[in-house]
Amino acid sequence: MKIKNVSILGAGTLGTRVALQAALSNYKVTIYDINPKALEASKKQMANIVNQLAKSSGLDPESGLNAIQTITFTDSPMVAVRDADIINESVVENVKVKNEVWELFGQIAPEKTIFTTNTSFLLPSMFAEISGRPEKFCALHFHDVFYAKGVDIMPHPGTDPSLIPILQEFGRSLEQVPVVIQKENHGYLFNAMLGAILSTAGKLLANKIANFEDIDKSYMVNFRVEMGPFAIMDSIGLDTVWHVTVNNNEESSKSFATILRKMLDEGKAGVKSGEGFYKYPNPAFKSPGFLN
Amino acid sequence: MKIKNVSILGAGTLGTRVALQAALSNYKVTIYDINPKALEASKKQMANIVNQLAKSSGLDPESGLNAIQTITFTDSPMVAVRDADIINESVVENVKVKNEVWELFGQIAPEKTIFTTNTSFLLPSMFAEISGRPEKFCALHFHDVFYAKGVDIMPHPGTDPSLIPILQEFGRSLEQVPVVIQKENHGYLFNAMLGAILSTAGKLLANKIANFEDIDKSYMVNFRVEMGPFAIMDSIGLDTVWHVTVNNNEESSKSFATILRKMLDEGKAGVKSGEGFYKYPNPAFKSPGFLN
Ligand SMILES: NC(=O)c1ccc[n+]([C@@H]2O[C@H](COP(=O)([O-])OP(=O)(O)OC[C@H]3O[C@@H](n4cnc5c(N)ncnc54)[C@H](O)[C@@H]3O)[C@@H](O)[C@H]2O)c1
Ligand SMILES: NC(=O)c1ccc[n+]([C@@H]2O[C@H](COP(=O)([O-])OP(=O)(O)OC[C@H]3O[C@@H](n4cnc5c(N)ncnc54)[C@H](O)[C@@H]3O)[C@@H](O)[C@H]2O)c1
Repeated sequence: MKIKNVSILGAGTLGTRVALQAALSNYKVTIYDINPKALEASKKQMANIVNQLAKSSGLDPESGLNAIQTITFTDSPMVAVRDADIINESVVENVKVKNEVWELFGQIAPEKTIFTTNTSFLLPSMFAEISGRPEKFCALHFHDVFYAKGVDIMPHPGTDPSLIPILQEFGRSLEQVPVVIQKENHGYLFNAMLGAILSTAGKLLANKIANFEDIDKSYMVNFRVEMGPFAIMDSIGLDTVWHVTVNNNEESSKSFATILRKMLDEGKAGVKSGEGFYKYPNPAFKSPGFLN
Repeated sequence: MKIKNVSILGAGTLGTRVALQAALSNYKVTIYDINPKALEASKKQMANIVNQLAKSSGLDPESGLNAIQTITFTDSPMVAVRDADIINESVVENVKVKNEVWELFGQIAPEKTIFTTNTSFLLPSMFAEISGRPEKFCALHFHDVFYAKGVDIMPHPGTDPSLIPILQEFGRSLEQVPVVIQKENHGYLFNAMLGAILSTAGKLLANKIANFEDIDKSYMVNFRVEMGPFAIMDSIGLDTVWHVTVNNNEESSKSFATILRKMLDEGKAGVKSGEGFYKYPNPAFKSPGFLN
């Protein structure tokens, strides 16, 4: 089958990015959210991203803004799936909400529609049955689409294997690098490895082995990269990091969660709040003297 | 105190690199090994490194080769420490051997000599007492000196704190980025984080979540770096990786260790043997089509 019409459910951080990339790749895109304010914000955010891409990767801003105009923004589920070849669901990471969404869309989507979820830490098997078409259900998980361009394809045991090459091809058409996960795994491949790095860094801090700047420095200079684990946590958002950390049962994870909780209570949620481990917009790790 | 004379114990992979960098930084360097063949090989390897640096970072090859000529290569412990301001020990990672070496050098080194060890996973407190001068004993741990330029300074509880700024300054003079570890920790900062990445990747493979190429791809494309965990393992050497993995008690580490053991039995030890996860000198992960 040839995918032409793409339906994105959830117009938050990730849905916005996937929808924009799909429109830039000449798909006919519809983006749906239960909250009309989210749809408005999404459209503005798309224009911001186009302007950033114009600077960073030479995208023609006019054709980028035109692509946004081709997107249908809707709070109507019926409009959202009318003629959809594929759904990529990016609603909030909450089992109950995702269940409601898949139950609804399982009933109203055309028979041809492929169902995919972007869940970061849940599993497709948790939603496959309630969607009513487990064989057409698969995780298709993006990272941030424009910088980190990997896309995870993770079937559950009931996924029809013929879906995999279709999703690989779809991922490539969105300028992503597809990888296939052979067995369901919380966190796919990259999030599992990233989680290990961040939790090890958190434990080094909680156990008072070193301060966070030295942990970041060590990571940056030895891997020759521009961000260490604490800078990455700031950009993910310390609320999300806290959520993952507090659910880990190890002793030192608990004490790192306590550190994060205290920061959050002081309003430090990372880049988005202006302060996390570092202060933004000019965090110390970006200053020329940091590595010495 | 001003460090002028640097004594390197052990002329293997790491000792060779630290000695060369110290000579390039205008220290008077002596390098000692119990095995005269290792000393010969070390001198040749230094010339190789100088030629590589001439290509990669514009080092003047003549001044590089001249620096090697200023180094004293010796299998005499007495010659090795004559007038040494600092010892940086890089003998084989074996508690018994390191104990013998520190007992000997504790007896023959001048009173002024600072004692430092490069151990990767052991702790300075394991050798401080036998050296006879625990207060002058500290870990000073390099990575690969020329590419990964971090240096860990890790005191044990009995280290004189006044040593720390001296070692920081010494690290910077060798063009490294020093970080101070506040409490002894196996694997310092970077090796602890690297270990978490590699063991998570190994578990993903052992649990058949994905093949090693897809795990590497996911890491490379989302972090935008040139090597994934399995390529890194190949470059470290699968014997070393096996050694660390087999000592980890988790179930999935055991099965990854079994995979590594089988590869080693087939002669696949990584880059140095021509094959590991990838085949060298032209491993698949370096081919232009790998990320698609
Ligand atoms: N943020 C990322 O970088 C990222 C990366 C990969 C995957 N994900 C995954 O994508 C999903 C969305 O994450 P996000 O960061 O974009 O979240 P977000 O909070 O930014 O957006 C979620 C959106 O879902 C909408 N929503 C809530 N309930 C809904 C419903 N019943 N019907 C329709 N829309 C509803 C909200 O109004 C909101 O706009 C999560 O599953 C997350 O794990 C996020
Ligand atoms: N290879 C690395 O990248 C690296 C990085 C950081 C730290 N280290 C640490 O540095 C140390 C050396 O590692 P390596 O990889 O260079 O090992 P290596 O095997 O390449 O070299 C060890 C050297 O020690 C010599 N030696 C053995 N017994 C000795 C003795 N009694 N007296 C003097 N010399 C003796 C050997 O002849 C050999 O030349 C280890 O503690 C290791 O953990 C290695």
